[in-house]
Amino acid sequence: MTDSGNAYDIIIIGGGAAGLTAGIYAGRAGMKTLMLERLMPGGQIINADRIENFPGFPDGVSGADIGPLMQRQATQWGMEVRLGEVDALAPSEGGGWRAAAWGEEYRGKAVIIAGGSAPRSLGVPGEEELYGAGVSHCATCDGGFFAGQPVAVVGGGDSALDEALVLTEYASKVTLIRRGGAFTGERVLQDRVLAHPKIEVVSDTRVDAVIGETQVEAVAVTNLLSGETSRIDVSGAFIYVGLDPNTDYLRELLSLDGGGHIPVDLNMRTALPGLFAAGDIRQHSAAALVSAAGDGATAAIAARRYIEGLASGGSQ
Amino acid sequence: MTDSGNAYDIIIIGGGAAGLTAGIYAGRAGMKTLMLERLMPGGQIINADRIENFPGFPDGVSGADIGPLMQRQATQWGMEVRLGEVDALAPSEGGGWRAAAWGEEYRGKAVIIAGGSAPRSLGVPGEEELYGAGVSHCATCDGGFFAGQPVAVVGGGDSALDEALVLTEYASKVTLIRRGGAFTGERVLQDRVLAHPKIEVVSDTRVDAVIGETQVEAVAVTNLLSGETSRIDVSGAFIYVGLDPNTDYLRELLSLDGGGHIPVDLNMRTALPGLFAAGDIRQHSAAALVSAAGDGATAAIAARRYIEGLASGGSQ
Repeated sequence: MTDSGNAYDIIIIGGGAAGLTAGIYAGRAGMKTLMLERLMPGGQIINADRIENFPGFPDGVSGADIGPLMQRQATQWGMEVRLGEVDALAPSEGGGWRAAAWGEEYRGKAVIIAGGSAPRSLGVPGEEELYGAGVSHCATCDGGFFAGQPVAVVGGGDSALDEALVLTEYASKVTLIRRGGAFTGERVLQDRVLAHPKIEVVSDTRVDAVIGETQVEAVAVTNLLSGETSRIDVSGAFIYVGLDPNTDYLRELLSLDGGGHIPVDLNMRTALPGLFAAGDIRQHSAAALVSAAGDGATAAIAARRYIEGLASGGSQ
Repeated sequence: MTDSGNAYDIIIIGGGAAGLTAGIYAGRAGMKTLMLERLMPGGQIINADRIENFPGFPDGVSGADIGPLMQRQATQWGMEVRLGEVDALAPSEGGGWRAAAWGEEYRGKAVIIAGGSAPRSLGVPGEEELYGAGVSHCATCDGGFFAGQPVAVVGGGDSALDEALVLTEYASKVTLIRRGGAFTGERVLQDRVLAHPKIEVVSDTRVDAVIGETQVEAVAVTNLLSGETSRIDVSGAFIYVGLDPNTDYLRELLSLDGGGHIPVDLNMRTALPGLFAAGDIRQHSAAALVSAAGDGATAAIAARRYIEGLASGGSQ
């Protein structure tokens, strides 16, 4: 630490729903608060075409709308935002924590880790090579490139269902490929997917490779019941097979669980004093948008109490 | 159980932010869902004049607006609402749970207890006798009765500060009486209260009695530092000294903590299978509106997984 201008009460790592809500609460509590975010605030929300289950928005809201609303709400109470990807976090000599992001060092009395998750890859041939050339993790971002063309969606959870529905607005046909025989996503979304004339569901099927020279041309698949292999011609492959928490830089500092998530208690405290985690980066997260936001508020309240030397928050 | 029309997948006890958000998630998951609420859905939200910290509403929103929005959002996905105060909850013979409310019995495969809290009383002479005759727990509801008259607010947390500010719109003067020498509410609210010309803050002071024949006329107080007693003439006394969870009917069923709150894990599971708790009725709640809503989503997701016989939700 050479620059006291980089000293804060609370540093929030990550600008998704958890981080932004933490920022609202930290700012309103009078804490000097910094958010570090590598892309733009909003996190996974931004990619959501239509959010129908965030309470207070019965007619639904797009991620592109609610993300900036939350950000304005946090910054208007004093939260600062800086661009930067945190790649190191360590105890500070004078107490508190220091975080390094893009060569800059920041110091906080408390840190709320709310860095969310990154889309998981299938790990099959062609996937990495054709990323951005037909392979995508975001229908809302990239769907427009596939107007009138057939695409595949891989996965069976909420994200896969939601994004398959988004893609019907553009693509000529959407083939939804799932490993199992049942969806895990919301029933409402399942019903819409099954009723949609443009969507074909291919069950009990594994994707073995993404095929194409310079652009995606097909996916190679195996039926897991019959063992039969085949090829599905598509121009795009949208992969939604889960998320991995952004915790690589924390492996030396914290004891993570098998999935790389951060164990916390009900106050969002990690095992280390002054270090909190919120949202789907923490263990046993329900992975619901409003639950992540709730975590953020809980973590900010607990962080404030920690800084003020009070017993940790909540009813006893 | 005599009437299978009263059989549900999920019963939600209480219609505050936690219960309503649980209803949104349960309904969208295709669960047959019933909410039991003794007054009207919305819970403590309804009394909030202006909510500035619920993410997505940077310009603030009134409780009277967001409560019905959440309710519509839950009912549009199929949640039913019935009026009734649950006073008994017990295991059902055929599995699951049965809840009794106003003489009617309801059966659920899972139950989410989201009954919130009731305002705590001071327990001083005159308080109970003059309740509704100047003694109140809701400035937004009752403030209009005190136009041009002096009132007292008792407490130092968020609710006391918020309601004192609401009362300045009506009352000639607001005396804010707190036992300690510091506020525990949000810094933003503290600043507004301290800057308000109509509000006088009286610290280190205990209320000994509410005085009045048929209406509140004064409060009797003791300065805790000097021991001096005095009388503050007011027409209204608004009490915000904490909340007690609505868990009396659960004392035989569950092991509650010292404050009467329900212990849960990070999935909002209680110690009993199929029984979940959400919001400020559960132990270690941050008592923030969005945290209660987040709890509701988490509990509904876990309840669905329980009903479907899956391992409990969340990342491992």
